[in-house]
Amino acid sequence: MIIVMQAGASEPQIQRVVARLTELGYEHHISYGVEHTLIGAVGAPEGEKEALAGQLSLLPGVERVVPILRPYKLVSREHATEPSVVRIGKAPFGRGQVSIIAGPCAIESEKQILEAAKAVKAAGGAVLRGGAYKPRTSPYTFQGMGEPGLQLLSAAREATGLPILTEVTDVRQLEEVTRVADSVQIGARNMQNYDLLRECGQISKPVVLKRGFAATVQEWLRAAEYIAAAGNLDIILCERGIRTFETETRFTLDLGGLAAAKLETHLPIIADPSHATGTHKLVPAMALAALAAGADGLMIEMHPHPDRALSDGPQSLTPKRLKTLMDQIRPLVAALGLELISPERG
Amino acid sequence: MIIVMQAGASEPQIQRVVARLTELGYEHHISYGVEHTLIGAVGAPEGEKEALAGQLSLLPGVERVVPILRPYKLVSREHATEPSVVRIGKAPFGRGQVSIIAGPCAIESEKQILEAAKAVKAAGGAVLRGGAYKPRTSPYTFQGMGEPGLQLLSAAREATGLPILTEVTDVRQLEEVTRVADSVQIGARNMQNYDLLRECGQISKPVVLKRGFAATVQEWLRAAEYIAAAGNLDIILCERGIRTFETETRFTLDLGGLAAAKLETHLPIIADPSHATGTHKLVPAMALAALAAGADGLMIEMHPHPDRALSDGPQSLTPKRLKTLMDQIRPLVAALGLELISPERG
Amino acid sequence: MIIVMQAGASEPQIQRVVARLTELGYEHHISYGVEHTLIGAVGAPEGEKEALAGQLSLLPGVERVVPILRPYKLVSREHATEPSVVRIGKAPFGRGQVSIIAGPCAIESEKQILEAAKAVKAAGGAVLRGGAYKPRTSPYTFQGMGEPGLQLLSAAREATGLPILTEVTDVRQLEEVTRVADSVQIGARNMQNYDLLRECGQISKPVVLKRGFAATVQEWLRAAEYIAAAGNLDIILCERGIRTFETETRFTLDLGGLAAAKLETHLPIIADPSHATGTHKLVPAMALAALAAGADGLMIEMHPHPDRALSDGPQSLTPKRLKTLMDQIRPLVAALGLELISPERG
Amino acid sequence: MIIVMQAGASEPQIQRVVARLTELGYEHHISYGVEHTLIGAVGAPEGEKEALAGQLSLLPGVERVVPILRPYKLVSREHATEPSVVRIGKAPFGRGQVSIIAGPCAIESEKQILEAAKAVKAAGGAVLRGGAYKPRTSPYTFQGMGEPGLQLLSAAREATGLPILTEVTDVRQLEEVTRVADSVQIGARNMQNYDLLRECGQISKPVVLKRGFAATVQEWLRAAEYIAAAGNLDIILCERGIRTFETETRFTLDLGGLAAAKLETHLPIIADPSHATGTHKLVPAMALAALAAGADGLMIEMHPHPDRALSDGPQSLTPKRLKTLMDQIRPLVAALGLELISPERG
Repeated sequence: MIIVMQAGASEPQIQRVVARLTELGYEHHISYGVEHTLIGAVGAPEGEKEALAGQLSLLPGVERVVPILRPYKLVSREHATEPSVVRIGKAPFGRGQVSIIAGPCAIESEKQILEAAKAVKAAGGAVLRGGAYKPRTSPYTFQGMGEPGLQLLSAAREATGLPILTEVTDVRQLEEVTRVADSVQIGARNMQNYDLLRECGQISKPVVLKRGFAATVQEWLRAAEYIAAAGNLDIILCERGIRTFETETRFTLDLGGLAAAKLETHLPIIADPSHATGTHKLVPAMALAALAAGADGLMIEMHPHPDRALSDGPQSLTPKRLKTLMDQIRPLVAALGLELISPERG
Repeated sequence: MIIVMQAGASEPQIQRVVARLTELGYEHHISYGVEHTLIGAVGAPEGEKEALAGQLSLLPGVERVVPILRPYKLVSREHATEPSVVRIGKAPFGRGQVSIIAGPCAIESEKQILEAAKAVKAAGGAVLRGGAYKPRTSPYTFQGMGEPGLQLLSAAREATGLPILTEVTDVRQLEEVTRVADSVQIGARNMQNYDLLRECGQISKPVVLKRGFAATVQEWLRAAEYIAAAGNLDIILCERGIRTFETETRFTLDLGGLAAAKLETHLPIIADPSHATGTHKLVPAMALAALAAGADGLMIEMHPHPDRALSDGPQSLTPKRLKTLMDQIRPLVAALGLELISPERG
Repeated sequence: MIIVMQAGASEPQIQRVVARLTELGYEHHISYGVEHTLIGAVGAPEGEKEALAGQLSLLPGVERVVPILRPYKLVSREHATEPSVVRIGKAPFGRGQVSIIAGPCAIESEKQILEAAKAVKAAGGAVLRGGAYKPRTSPYTFQGMGEPGLQLLSAAREATGLPILTEVTDVRQLEEVTRVADSVQIGARNMQNYDLLRECGQISKPVVLKRGFAATVQEWLRAAEYIAAAGNLDIILCERGIRTFETETRFTLDLGGLAAAKLETHLPIIADPSHATGTHKLVPAMALAALAAGADGLMIEMHPHPDRALSDGPQSLTPKRLKTLMDQIRPLVAALGLELISPERG
Repeated sequence: MIIVMQAGASEPQIQRVVARLTELGYEHHISYGVEHTLIGAVGAPEGEKEALAGQLSLLPGVERVVPILRPYKLVSREHATEPSVVRIGKAPFGRGQVSIIAGPCAIESEKQILEAAKAVKAAGGAVLRGGAYKPRTSPYTFQGMGEPGLQLLSAAREATGLPILTEVTDVRQLEEVTRVADSVQIGARNMQNYDLLRECGQISKPVVLKRGFAATVQEWLRAAEYIAAAGNLDIILCERGIRTFETETRFTLDLGGLAAAKLETHLPIIADPSHATGTHKLVPAMALAALAAGADGLMIEMHPHPDRALSDGPQSLTPKRLKTLMDQIRPLVAALGLELISPERG
């Protein structure tokens, strides 16, 4: 980090900063400038830097403390210069391979999830999604089927061969969900549920980590670092829209943030145009845009009968609309020099 | 809810909406306007309205579905027209009574928390805060002392008589924290951790629910409704700044949102100027502003030695600065016609 | 509009609303519901509705006033159901035809703008952009060359045949700029400079209207309506990023907003990935994404020597990078079923 | 500024940066650190620093360029360490003196503005506001009375002795408005209308500069610097709410930003709780909060008959509500150690 001293900081003030750095095991180098004296510091453990920067900023004569290093390691491009490929079942995400995850917001019945699974497979989707535990804004709305839902999702996998992805909202569900599902999703509202992140670092299934809708790209990558630091590097990041002043769409899909994150991390990143837009009318445009921006896959809400859906109906594609979209995705992906993978397709 | 039909919607389209409403047990009344036909609907259980509104919006001929009722009940002014008073130990919040919570971000040592507790008491604070479990953005920073920290906090209560408040970040900590602390805090990052909210609805201690930094006032009240619906109405809401484009302050303290929430709910609402501003230089101004805006109390970070703090040093007041602030608060509170309560003060 | 009366509103309160509607020439129809009485109102001139809605909301017994119609007409899909094509010189924007505008942020010298113009033409760009009057955040930075810059831009058109686009920041420049340029740009900071909008409605050149970085899609369309209402429907909208909490990019390119706006208006909409991202590293990804989201063209900053640019260097492509991007755009546009137009290309 | 070189930057890369600095007349000092080499640079004219920082960031081996100085001078605390007092007529703003500006959004008729002026005076307001030229979101709504409105405002001054403040939206109105009014307001939508700012720098009346609703504090101060640099230091800043995701209030009154700005500038800063909240119900709470946060005055919308107002009715106080608010302001201001000035009051 660089400690910028105020113009006119005294030598004792400079030495007090230096003494503090030495006390904490930092090496330093002082640069006396015409206006400002700069003190560069290196060497302390990563975890202490943030607190130290705060402490130093309070010392007399200090103008500002400027951090240099990015506060994540395992998920960074420095750790792995090549893009990583992460697989859910046989479906690959990353390094030019694109897979599509689709399915309903919530598992509602055996008939519904089976119908959905078959439609996903027929359209060329690679992974089936469906929620058994749903985080809902109101306590009075449908909260998901829970454990029986997991069984129905598993049956849909049997029937189609598609690997399954489902959300976990509580550490106490993790063992059960991990046993059944091929991949575990951490939702946007839990992106900074650090206890859950740590636990997901200890499972042996890939984790889809949605970006919190008010999380910066830096915070998102640091949340991924929690999982990685606990031992699991099979992480797929998912951009799903951030909260802004614009209410024309439900959230604002931040494709610039997705592209920026790809410069920082080797992990694959997918996009969820359904939650971002909140309406099926905008899902195709934003699905294509996400791939053009560099997404390694998509997560799309599809329901056999959106006008009967217990949640997120307005943003769900019908099976027919999903098929049409997949037909638009194929030439686009080819034009981008990428490969669309549909492992279970004929 | 009101279903607004498109200009030129056909009679069969109108009847299809009506049939669906009838199927679901709603009563309806149709109003044929010059341009738009309106269909008013009442009668279904609260929890199904949101999904139904989504479903109806997909029917042919429907322009828009406009909800009428606020989606919360127990925490609303309709439920209790008088403002509620919630107490942490003997410290009251609400109905003209103002109490001040203060203390360090994290419990770091016996010496630190005792020194802090005595300073809080001396300044006229009513509740001691201190974190044992800390949600931190990076996995490499200090994560709190955990259970031993709780014991130190308890000892500080013994020494001063101040009731204690501490954060819970995981359902698995709840039993232990509830046994020790006088009040449990749900942090901003967990405001939509619904499993944790539900569990907090089953304890018999007051819950301080911080507003998520990207949560609307409506979502904040609905999060409180989760706790209330599970059986606990001893809730104190805490505004602590929302995330905006402005980076001059760490967050943007939304006092307009606080004042608007007070029109909607009978629950007491306090403000946390420390996390909102991120710098001790702005804490006094925003503390006074929050009280003038109608806050029923404040939560203020104070550390015996901010330049040695393991977290949040820059935004922590010194004991001396806390005392000065309390001396500014007293005449202000009197001018506002409120009463400042310092139960443990001589 | 719909006036929703409070539950329990009295008949005199209802009649007072009705009397007021009648006084103002509205027709009304009352619908007595089980809980809420609704009053539908139609018929007053568009311009008075907003004020009236505000006034009615203050009457006793009124819960809420819900507007129904979109507050713009000429730019809406109701006015022209087919997408419009707007041309700058021979370059068409809209209805499946895509053109690329490129050039430096500011005109700096004859050599610079000529070099830039040739590079734009060589890469297949259709319009040359360059600023003579620059709105800059600080009064001490380069403010543009002014009128002499316009002459240099005109000379660059002579040399290449490319039509030219330049920004107007003040009504007093409009006559001169309109005489020289093929199209006039209203910048983001002037999107709600209504006097300037009105004046641009009276010129006979196409107007590129950038979205204000804090403007909603609705406000953007209403700003366009100002120009249209004054007589000029040759409007190209330009999404250039909105201001959000995310600082990883300079602004957040709102492609969901672009796609949503295309559902509302028949006007062509282009995107500016340069100002949105603030770095040339992200321009290609966001340029492709914008086209996939439905943009009818792009505006891209290119400078012969970005590391010597007097403004916006970091986000400017070099001529070589522009050429590479155009080579990526061609197959993408084809895959999307669109046509890229390069009128001046050999 | 500080140029931070990448870890492993080569000596030729470092020398290339140095050569560029020398070429441009900068002095430099190099500091070879263990990981990063830092180059400090001072000496170039303020206006060129921004462009140069951009250029340097593009040179090979450069990690980042960190500016040190704040990009404004005349409005900063360095320029004038004592807070300034700015007067509209006899009403002072700043250095512990607080004045209240009140009046209708728009001048609508002689009767209306006279009635308003008398009510402002009776309540103890110090300045009368009223708009003759109104920037409105839609071209079809009431756009203000224009020049005849100015005459009515002037007549209201004659009748009450109150100085008058009115908005200017176009450079072409400036001469006329300056002749009539005691103070000129630049509205939020014109905060970055730099041509207008420059012109307002050349008048001899005080300027009230509203913060753009998407402007950072830094941009706001730089907009003020435009006026100051053109010769006019009689500037009153006005915080009126920023645009955020929260829709419960019309805008989010950023009192933390106001308090932060007061640390940076010697200029007085007032707040407008009316536009910020959008509803008269929240105006009193936010008016008091603004004063407690350090505002040097308030601008409050008041209309003799809000339910007949041609604009902004819902957020306007009635004369009676203004009087009640003034009665709450007096003890608050006293408790804060400030002085409320009502020059025209008996």
